[in-house]
Amino acid sequence: MESLFEQLRRYGEGQCYPYHMPGHKRNALGDLPEEIAGRDITEIEGFDNLHDPRDLFVRLQQEAAALYGAEKSFYLVNGSTCGILSAISAVLPKGGHILMSRGSHKSAYHAVYLRNLTVSYLYPELIPGYDIFDAITAGQVEEALQREPDIGAVFLVSPTYEGRIAPIEEIARIVHRRGIPLIVDEAHGAHLGLAEGFARNSCQAGADIVIHSVHKTLPAMTQTALLHVNGRLVDRELLQRFLHIYQTSSPSYILMASIDNALRVAARNGEELFGRFLASYCGMLKQLTARCRYLKFLLPEAGRQDIGKLVILTRQAGLSGQKLYDILLKEYQLQLEMASESFCLAMFTIGDGQEGYTRMTEALLAVDARIGAGALTEERPEGKTFPTDFSVLCSGKEDSRDGKVSLSQAWDCPARQIPLEQAAGYPTAEFVNLYPPGVPILVPGEIFAEELCRKLKAFWEQGLHVQGIFPEVTQDNGTRCMVRVIDPQ
Amino acid sequence: MESLFEQLRRYGEGQCYPYHMPGHKRNALGDLPEEIAGRDITEIEGFDNLHDPRDLFVRLQQEAAALYGAEKSFYLVNGSTCGILSAISAVLPKGGHILMSRGSHKSAYHAVYLRNLTVSYLYPELIPGYDIFDAITAGQVEEALQREPDIGAVFLVSPTYEGRIAPIEEIARIVHRRGIPLIVDEAHGAHLGLAEGFARNSCQAGADIVIHSVHKTLPAMTQTALLHVNGRLVDRELLQRFLHIYQTSSPSYILMASIDNALRVAARNGEELFGRFLASYCGMLKQLTARCRYLKFLLPEAGRQDIGKLVILTRQAGLSGQKLYDILLKEYQLQLEMASESFCLAMFTIGDGQEGYTRMTEALLAVDARIGAGALTEERPEGKTFPTDFSVLCSGKEDSRDGKVSLSQAWDCPARQIPLEQAAGYPTAEFVNLYPPGVPILVPGEIFAEELCRKLKAFWEQGLHVQGIFPEVTQDNGTRCMVRVIDPQ
Repeated sequence: MESLFEQLRRYGEGQCYPYHMPGHKRNALGDLPEEIAGRDITEIEGFDNLHDPRDLFVRLQQEAAALYGAEKSFYLVNGSTCGILSAISAVLPKGGHILMSRGSHKSAYHAVYLRNLTVSYLYPELIPGYDIFDAITAGQVEEALQREPDIGAVFLVSPTYEGRIAPIEEIARIVHRRGIPLIVDEAHGAHLGLAEGFARNSCQAGADIVIHSVHKTLPAMTQTALLHVNGRLVDRELLQRFLHIYQTSSPSYILMASIDNALRVAARNGEELFGRFLASYCGMLKQLTARCRYLKFLLPEAGRQDIGKLVILTRQAGLSGQKLYDILLKEYQLQLEMASESFCLAMFTIGDGQEGYTRMTEALLAVDARIGAGALTEERPEGKTFPTDFSVLCSGKEDSRDGKVSLSQAWDCPARQIPLEQAAGYPTAEFVNLYPPGVPILVPGEIFAEELCRKLKAFWEQGLHVQGIFPEVTQDNGTRCMVRVIDPQ
Repeated sequence: MESLFEQLRRYGEGQCYPYHMPGHKRNALGDLPEEIAGRDITEIEGFDNLHDPRDLFVRLQQEAAALYGAEKSFYLVNGSTCGILSAISAVLPKGGHILMSRGSHKSAYHAVYLRNLTVSYLYPELIPGYDIFDAITAGQVEEALQREPDIGAVFLVSPTYEGRIAPIEEIARIVHRRGIPLIVDEAHGAHLGLAEGFARNSCQAGADIVIHSVHKTLPAMTQTALLHVNGRLVDRELLQRFLHIYQTSSPSYILMASIDNALRVAARNGEELFGRFLASYCGMLKQLTARCRYLKFLLPEAGRQDIGKLVILTRQAGLSGQKLYDILLKEYQLQLEMASESFCLAMFTIGDGQEGYTRMTEALLAVDARIGAGALTEERPEGKTFPTDFSVLCSGKEDSRDGKVSLSQAWDCPARQIPLEQAAGYPTAEFVNLYPPGVPILVPGEIFAEELCRKLKAFWEQGLHVQGIFPEVTQDNGTRCMVRVIDPQ
């Protein structure tokens, strides 16, 4: 069969005149590229309807399911976000009880809010010696389910942003023993299970719902995703209801064609592309670890650390991750994915050619040599020290059910702003995040502990980006950290 | 300033190597067009973040607000759907009371469900002599607000799919007299207020929130939209919270660039483009009305019927709208927007060139002549008669608050399937729609009346598409209409 992109191109070149949306009528008005205008249609004859599939999308979604080893798959045009919202909404009634990783994407917290769920959290551990969260362990899940027998569903993320992989097969067995479903946010793992040398994906490992961001690691457009479902623990009609609710009724055929494109590339040329990717990536890492004296790397590890997420550890080099990120961007024109206090992250996929590996290797070797020669030192703002104490992010003593108000109630409460120094003992009205990594330190309803207030102050003074702290100029032109607490009235 | 498309193109041609998402790394892998791959990025240096705008999106959204006469505007990448969900979620607390047009988009019903709202409906009247719903009148709004003083917000659609325009200025005054906000779903009217000869848009007319589908009538890509906000009746922080919730955290820069493109075209070349559009459209209609003897047309009317929605009425020609739609598609290669029992709809925009007007005019004149010559008759399935009695769609006696259960509760209730003939007196567990026009006949919780069951049976037997009727094969190989009702257990 032709690809959807090819079908759209052929249709656009035909003689049929469009008396329908979209309004550009296939003309490249303004700067709209012709290749986009000519392929951008709506639900017309021959092109089915994503929300009521009869032929085209039945076939495409079946192909997706077959590729990943799922029973049923759905194309998503509102990112993994809508998949996570739909999955959590469908597996629990309003007010239900979910067990989820504290390192979950914000859409999981949003689902908790929308459905007024009770939450228990699994707090990821830091990888010993690093400021990087590890994946959730099977033991953590087992222990939490024993402690809270009314939990109705489990939500995990694997791989994490930094590539940490959880033992999903073992966790699925533990969760299924309770007769409840396991949802895996595998947004960062759409490439898993597609070729030798890569970890299995979570469909293959027994999860009930798996969400993939197709754009993150495969050749699809930003904002595209897939949701897969397996087994009998999920009400599929209800799941579809929520997928309709959380997605536009006018899905873009160009986005959907780009999902088809990614999966076709993986299915048809996957063996060659993934093989080359694996060899190039491991080759680069071998050179880097052998020749770099100051920069360190998280190494791929079967079932623990994914291929492609190059985590460059900078602490031993006396640089912040942000500083290395800036050097690579400004001096070498290498745009990385993110930077944290003690590492930065570069992503590699089957889309990279030799240039990507060569430029990164040469740049890192050069930077490492400059560090050795004492030619690279970082001027740090006064009072800014590191390492920073991230342990507060995984201390996890205040589940929302311990407090008096749920996340949902708390986020809807009237709030007032008070100075951070006076916040101890008050429940927060907003999420408080250290970004990156973006794991919430506090969610609405949780209490500002005295020690936490001191640490937040320290983060702020070190120049880290703390969401949920609102700076206010004081009368003497200083700056005061304000936070929002639930108004006790 | 350069367009966003142009900025993306230039960036893509630069020397910066992408160690970030999306996974195609700007390479046209598979059938991904190069013009897409080369412009598809994520939140990297210089390209801001839609969900936390600092420069680029501040400027683009300010330009949108200026163009439409709004105080603040938001780019949307999940269609008008996410704008409607966010608007309704932000203006009322959970359990609040909304007044809305029964002809609202399904996302408005979804917002009612998500937020467990009480609903009162405004039932549009049919245009006398036609099976087409008119816009809601000011008198209807006034009367409803008097009857139900606890209504907290009003939601209307204008223009409708068929181009009917409501008197928003007058309605806004009535609604504001109660101190509550007016939301206008102006998805079909993103071209309004941009040029002489077109109606004002609802921002200019005083609505508090206005939602535009940019792709429907302007040169933007499918799935793009805008939300505008005005005045002090809407909590803008809460509105933004919901826009974050209902939209992907990875918005497509290509979709956003196409919004920018549409607004730039309108702002820079609008006078010329809209002038030519108006002249061509009115010229075509003049010819058609003068020369067609059987086919009839809804004529543009200031403040009542929009420009560009060519509603072709077929009843007097002895054809169904669907039949004309099929003839135009198969014999003339003209793809229309939709067909109903007694009319079909062709859309014209500033994207149409002379070809669009010429081909439509020639085809309709030819069809009209063939009808006159008796050369076009429709074989109708046995038992299929028309006109169909659509009055049931606007009888409106069963607001959800009259029943025992709300829409939200009813849609979550356990359901069972029973034959339509036995459904009288039961509350429905599903939406029942006649499509098109798609206005719900029943929403979950509303009661199947005896007369309604008879009419639904008749619609079904006439071959109309009724959503919410589930055909079942009987033992003697016939077909039985089943419906879903709330399980009384």
